[in-house]
Amino acid sequence: MNATPERPDDSFHVFDTTLRDGAQREGINLSVADKLTIARQLDEFGVGFIEGGWPGAVPRDTEFFRRAVDEVDFRHAQLVAFGSTRKAGVAVEEDAQVAALLEAKAPVICLVAKSHDRHVELALRTTLDENLAMVRDTVSYLSGQGRRVFVDCEHFFDGFKANPDYAKSVVRTAAEAGADVVVLCDTNGGMLPAGVHAVVSEVIADTGARIGMHAQDDTGCAVANTLAAVDAGATHVQCTANGYGERVGNANLFPVVAALELKYDRRVLPPGALREMTRISHAIAEVVNLAPSTHQPYVGVSAFAHKAGLHASAIKVDPDLYQHTDPERVGNTMRMLVSDMAGRASVELKGKELGVDLGGDRELVGRVVERIKQAELRGYTYEAADASFELLLREEVARRPLRYFRTESWRAITEYRPDGTHAIEATVKLWAKGERIIATAEGNGPVNALDRALRVALERIHRELAGFELVDYKVRILEGTHGSQSTTRVLVTTSDGRTEWSTVGVGDNIIAASWQALVDAYTFGLLRAGVAADEA
Amino acid sequence: MNATPERPDDSFHVFDTTLRDGAQREGINLSVADKLTIARQLDEFGVGFIEGGWPGAVPRDTEFFRRAVDEVDFRHAQLVAFGSTRKAGVAVEEDAQVAALLEAKAPVICLVAKSHDRHVELALRTTLDENLAMVRDTVSYLSGQGRRVFVDCEHFFDGFKANPDYAKSVVRTAAEAGADVVVLCDTNGGMLPAGVHAVVSEVIADTGARIGMHAQDDTGCAVANTLAAVDAGATHVQCTANGYGERVGNANLFPVVAALELKYDRRVLPPGALREMTRISHAIAEVVNLAPSTHQPYVGVSAFAHKAGLHASAIKVDPDLYQHTDPERVGNTMRMLVSDMAGRASVELKGKELGVDLGGDRELVGRVVERIKQAELRGYTYEAADASFELLLREEVARRPLRYFRTESWRAITEYRPDGTHAIEATVKLWAKGERIIATAEGNGPVNALDRALRVALERIHRELAGFELVDYKVRILEGTHGSQSTTRVLVTTSDGRTEWSTVGVGDNIIAASWQALVDAYTFGLLRAGVAADEA
Repeated sequence: MNATPERPDDSFHVFDTTLRDGAQREGINLSVADKLTIARQLDEFGVGFIEGGWPGAVPRDTEFFRRAVDEVDFRHAQLVAFGSTRKAGVAVEEDAQVAALLEAKAPVICLVAKSHDRHVELALRTTLDENLAMVRDTVSYLSGQGRRVFVDCEHFFDGFKANPDYAKSVVRTAAEAGADVVVLCDTNGGMLPAGVHAVVSEVIADTGARIGMHAQDDTGCAVANTLAAVDAGATHVQCTANGYGERVGNANLFPVVAALELKYDRRVLPPGALREMTRISHAIAEVVNLAPSTHQPYVGVSAFAHKAGLHASAIKVDPDLYQHTDPERVGNTMRMLVSDMAGRASVELKGKELGVDLGGDRELVGRVVERIKQAELRGYTYEAADASFELLLREEVARRPLRYFRTESWRAITEYRPDGTHAIEATVKLWAKGERIIATAEGNGPVNALDRALRVALERIHRELAGFELVDYKVRILEGTHGSQSTTRVLVTTSDGRTEWSTVGVGDNIIAASWQALVDAYTFGLLRAGVAADEA
Repeated sequence: MNATPERPDDSFHVFDTTLRDGAQREGINLSVADKLTIARQLDEFGVGFIEGGWPGAVPRDTEFFRRAVDEVDFRHAQLVAFGSTRKAGVAVEEDAQVAALLEAKAPVICLVAKSHDRHVELALRTTLDENLAMVRDTVSYLSGQGRRVFVDCEHFFDGFKANPDYAKSVVRTAAEAGADVVVLCDTNGGMLPAGVHAVVSEVIADTGARIGMHAQDDTGCAVANTLAAVDAGATHVQCTANGYGERVGNANLFPVVAALELKYDRRVLPPGALREMTRISHAIAEVVNLAPSTHQPYVGVSAFAHKAGLHASAIKVDPDLYQHTDPERVGNTMRMLVSDMAGRASVELKGKELGVDLGGDRELVGRVVERIKQAELRGYTYEAADASFELLLREEVARRPLRYFRTESWRAITEYRPDGTHAIEATVKLWAKGERIIATAEGNGPVNALDRALRVALERIHRELAGFELVDYKVRILEGTHGSQSTTRVLVTTSDGRTEWSTVGVGDNIIAASWQALVDAYTFGLLRAGVAADEA
């Protein structure tokens, strides 16, 4: 089991179920390696409990527990195995599913129990009394084996509405049998905060059990429902990173802990952990292979982004007037957005952020605003392409195009051959330093082949290019919904091994748009490497 | 002004500010035509008030009001012009901004006023008394001109914390001067529901004013904060479609009205409107050119989607046990997801949904589950590609591949020429009905050219194809984050003018992936048109 050097005290539990309930989200499919990586990230963030899955029922989860117990040195978290109460009519010692929970060797077991009378009868097909016996037997058996036991009361709030006495009797039975925490689950997610507060208050008053909350986000209130339960006396919250979960999702771990730490002034994470929140949220999104939500509270790239010209000018006076918390406290940063709604003040602030001194030059700022407007009309967006924006800004400051080469022509061929193989090839013809350069390269796709051909062409002249790598590539088709033809926008992120920069390209087709973004990417990289630009 | 045939009664206001505050969202940039379209959609949905923008301050908004008043026949909503109180030290009759509000000819004017003492001093740079005079003068002047006036108290909750007496005096001044509703704005979005409830209760008790709520979502609680205000006596809620807005966003109109109608049993929309909610949410996303959030409460495509094998088997018994509301009440539908987490029960249910009888054939269902697992390992996903899934299913039922042609080879060339033009051309070589067909076509991009060449090749044989049109195209680069090479996944939506279907393709490069999705799209379309498939 785990050593406990920095474990938070037990009076309040931050219980993460990203790996179990979060994995139910449409579009998520985690390998064992993914689960181990996320478990390490959650432990680093400092949650108290990590529910890893259902060993025995899901083969990948069995494997996860085997490896996690051996390979992961948890500093903060305890590993939790999820499972079910014993089957109806079977002795707990002879229930294979229960035995598998012990074999997982997690110090904590979280058992799901039915607490809604209709679910007992229709889904479980047993009697209300037998369900109570199943809870009692399983909890006391697993406690007797030295495990700490929590009980998730599935469909608790709907069950409470239908038959409050029976729902509460499940809580009482679990607590009396030795469950440390009984968790009230809003499994269908239909609750609102006022209702949660009332039910949790009544359950605590009537049963005396230690209560936890598990909220789903079907009404858009999962974070608020979790906090309402805490207000009513719950001391254990079940959440998932980025709110991943079935249907709409689960209570989002990040705004829940941020509210507890920043708004309630309640310490629920190890010291310093909150400042890692934005990074960890994005890292987990990376592993589950979903784009991080740009508009997620606290951690989204837009969460502290200001667009309105009205605000922008006032933010110059005092940023604290316009943000509910200092973004640095959650590891995020304030950003000024460049858009044609923004006035001069936004462009000036953005220039400052990029280290380009516009020196209050009204005419210069006016030219920049005008160029942005024109570009946005054609489908460009600079909000996610800081490097393309900085190039635009520096060109206006220099009053000339900044470039290292001139494109004569290029061609990309993608072919599927009768033998079932693909042949992909690109040729570029450029002028640089007075020289005409022709280069051809193969690639695993047309954009990759163009990228390689461009690099081959320029590398002889600019050695700095050797270290550049295209690390992310996004395509957006801008529908011509309003009568116009559709255009393609490409965002490219390039790395030089130390930093990354993003550029944008727009065109009638994906290859042309990609070419533009690549040209900006190489130009920006060379500019930043201190290479003097010429007129090519 | 507007006729009022079906206007909801005035006791509760659903006030939409998508066109004003929602347009502040990062990535949104609305034309006048876009704004008119959205205004019609919101009116159709039945909101009581549509805040259209700031006439006078924003030229596009001035134009919007000019056209909206003339061109739009509002059935439910009243048009609201947003503006500011008069400037400090200027007589209200001589304030150009105030005059522009009247010129907009909207029956309602919503004035923003400062209510936070520090904002008055630092951002507005005037005295607390002059600010009160600005509120008083502007409200009474505009009321005197026959307009209904609402007042938005900006930064109210932060202001209340800093100086509750001053904040309340702004409310009192506005109400006494003739404002029908005084709206408390959580401009920085830092509030939680319990705090909102306490402040709104106190303001109502102390001022007697009619109170509205404007929440931002920075803590992830905007919907709950809006409902907390209603619980405390607010009778006017300001929201935006899909929660669009600055930073994290505003209170989302859809879950707010759904909670009021379905959970509070309060009629706030015209009869039948709620059933249009999913459609209208997606239509507005279309106009603002943002992908609809798949996980949005009530209206997301995932909002009633079930994945877990555990649930899937129980849903067969009684769907109401597993959903907090009937999805039809909000115009959405329950979906069963196909994924390797899903067991046989999910595949059977999905088959039923698609009208493919798997007849409890255990071996057949097993083959389907196995094929899905293998495909998902290679990067396929069927969750958003029902047509590719149905093809897979029908192939397993038929125990043979379903195809109308065999691909020998294809080639796509994209070229940028020295004269600055693009040349894009694709050639396909196919076998169909024993015949070898070669076709070449140009296009505005390589995928478009391939699509056209494929159509040219097949049209002679299958006339049905003539009506098919590629209507949506999505690309996702699946990062090889875990050591493997990256792959590309393409989702294509095709229409025959009456219905649409979606197919998926996966490949090492974007063109190969697109080709696969196109082949599935044409195959599915012909299959559905009743054309008999052969072995080509």
